Amino acid sequence: MQTAISRTPMILNWHLVPYHAPIVLGRALGLFAEESLQIAMLEPTDPSDVTELVGRGVADIGLKAMTHIYAARQRGYPVKSIGTLLHEPPTGLVFKKSSGIEKLEDIRGKRLGYVGELGKVIIDDLCRSAGIAEEEYECVRVGMNVVDAIIDGRVDTGVGIGCVQCVELEQLTGEPAGILRIDDMAGLGCCCFCSIFYIATETILEQQPEKVEGFMRAIQRASAWMLDHPEQAYDMMCQQVPKMRSKLNQKIFMHCLPFFSRTQENVERDWTKVGDYVSRLGLVEEPVNYEAHYTNEFLSKPPFAAPQVFMQTA
Amino acid sequence: MQTAISRTPMILNWHLVPYHAPIVLGRALGLFAEESLQIAMLEPTDPSDVTELVGRGVADIGLKAMTHIYAARQRGYPVKSIGTLLHEPPTGLVFKKSSGIEKLEDIRGKRLGYVGELGKVIIDDLCRSAGIAEEEYECVRVGMNVVDAIIDGRVDTGVGIGCVQCVELEQLTGEPAGILRIDDMAGLGCCCFCSIFYIATETILEQQPEKVEGFMRAIQRASAWMLDHPEQAYDMMCQQVPKMRSKLNQKIFMHCLPFFSRTQENVERDWTKVGDYVSRLGLVEEPVNYEAHYTNEFLSKPPFAAPQVFMQTA
Repeated sequence: MQTAISRTPMILNWHLVPYHAPIVLGRALGLFAEESLQIAMLEPTDPSDVTELVGRGVADIGLKAMTHIYAARQRGYPVKSIGTLLHEPPTGLVFKKSSGIEKLEDIRGKRLGYVGELGKVIIDDLCRSAGIAEEEYECVRVGMNVVDAIIDGRVDTGVGIGCVQCVELEQLTGEPAGILRIDDMAGLGCCCFCSIFYIATETILEQQPEKVEGFMRAIQRASAWMLDHPEQAYDMMCQQVPKMRSKLNQKIFMHCLPFFSRTQENVERDWTKVGDYVSRLGLVEEPVNYEAHYTNEFLSKPPFAAPQVFMQTA
Repeated sequence: MQTAISRTPMILNWHLVPYHAPIVLGRALGLFAEESLQIAMLEPTDPSDVTELVGRGVADIGLKAMTHIYAARQRGYPVKSIGTLLHEPPTGLVFKKSSGIEKLEDIRGKRLGYVGELGKVIIDDLCRSAGIAEEEYECVRVGMNVVDAIIDGRVDTGVGIGCVQCVELEQLTGEPAGILRIDDMAGLGCCCFCSIFYIATETILEQQPEKVEGFMRAIQRASAWMLDHPEQAYDMMCQQVPKMRSKLNQKIFMHCLPFFSRTQENVERDWTKVGDYVSRLGLVEEPVNYEAHYTNEFLSKPPFAAPQVFMQTA
C-alpha cells in the first residue's frame, strides 16, 4: 500500500477543459512517470483561488493567465511563469448575436459577466476609455459560469475566450455568437494578456529545480505529440477523462489547437506589453520588473523524444 | 485587490457531485463567511490523491471514506475524521441487469472496475472468501469513470455507490441497474466502510481548532437547512454550480438525501466495525486504535441557527 512517488499537487486555472490536454496526456503517455513524477491535478471551483494557493505553496504548480501573475506578485506571492500552455487566445466580451451587441457602446444598459475581480477592472477601464459611465452598465461576477449566465439571462454578455466560451455559446444555443475582443478595444494588438502559463513559486524553483525541469519536459513532449496527432490525442484524453467525450468538447479542442504553444517559451514582448497594460490599470506599481515574472530556464530545447504510444481500445 | 481572508484549501473525495451540496451551500448561504472562512473547494482528478495531499498538509480539509482514513494513518498521514457527510450509502458492485450478474459467483470470467487500490483489496477479499480464484476474474482500475467503463464495455461491473452510480447507470442506459452490496457479501451489516467524512490532520486540529470548529459549524448549519429545504437547496446549488442542473443530478440528489448525516457525528460502532474489517483485510496492524481515527469535539450541538436565505432568481 506504499506510494512510491510523492504526489505533486497542481491546480488548474479552470475546471478541466479540452485545452488542458497536454497535462492529461503527460499522465496518459507515462511522461510524468518517466520523470519520477506523479501529478495530482486539482480543479478549482473558483478560479480566483488559484494564485493564492500556488503562491502560498499549497500546490507546487498551477496554471494562470498573465494578468493574474502580475497581480499575484504585486500581492506578495512570488509566482513565476515557467512555460506557456496557450498563447494569445482571442478573449473578450462574448454574446449571442441576438443580443444586439456590435460594439462596446452597445453595452449601455446591459449586464456584463466577469470571472473574478481582475475582469471587472478590465471592463471598467474599457468603458471609461470609451466614455461610458459606471452607472450605464451593470457588472455581475459569474466565475466559471459565464455561458450559463448568458443562456439563462442573468447577463447579456461576459468575458470569455473565443475558442472555448464562444464555441460553447454557439453549440448550446444553436445561435451564432460574437466576441468584442479586448485586445482591439484596449489597443493591445494581441490577446497575450490572456495567455495561460504554467506557474510555480520561486521557492519551488530554487529548491526543486529538477522537478520543475522534469515537469516541463514531460509537458513539452506531450504537447509536441498532441500537436502531431490531434485526433489520437483527443481520443486518449477522453479515455482518461470520459466527461471530455462530447461533440462540444471535441469542437472546443479543435478550436484550441491553433493556440497551443509549440515551444512553451515565454515571449519577452508579451510580458512587457502586458506589464505596461496592468500598470496602466493600476494593478502593479511602476517601474514594472517584467523579467521577475517569468523564466525559460526550465524548458528543454526541441526536438522532444517522442513518447511510446499504446492506445487502449475503447 | 487585497484578499481579506486567507483561503482554506479543501479537496473533495470525487469530482463535484450532488452529495457535496452542504459545502456548496456553506458558501452560497454565507455561512463560511460568518466564520471568517473562505473555502477553496478543489476537485481531484484522481480520488487516490486525496489522503496523501491532506495528510501532507497541502489542503487543510478533505473528504474521504472510512477505509481510506484507516489506510492513510497506517501510511503515516495523521488524518482524522472531524465529522460525517454521508453515512452508510449502499455500496457495491454495480451493473446493468443485462450483464447477467445476480450473485458474486457470476463474476467468474468478468472484468471488474475499481476506483483505487483499496477497492481491489476489497474485491479480492470477497472473491477469496467465496472461493473464486484470482485467475477467474479481471480487475481494471477505472478511477472516477466506473459508469463510463460499464457503458463502453471495458468492464462488466464495478465498485460504486447505489445513490450515485446506480442512478447514473440507469439514467444513461435506460436499463435497470443492480448492485451486489459489499456489506452483505463481507458480512458487515451496513455500508459504514463507505461513509464519507470531513477530514483534517492532527496538526490543523491542534494549531487551528477555531477554524475547524467554524468550518464544521457552517457545514452543520448548511446541512440542517438543506435537509429541511431540499428543493430550494438543490436550486441554490445549481445557481452556484450550473453543471449540477440536470435531470440526472437532480435524481442523484434525491437519492442521496436519505444518506446525509443529520448530526455529522462519528459513530463509535461504525469505526470499530470497519477497523476490524480493514484489519482483517491486512490494511492496518493490530491492535487497532479506533479512537485515533475520529473526533467529535469540533462539532456543535443542535439546534443550529438557521441561515438567512435570499434566493437569486434564475
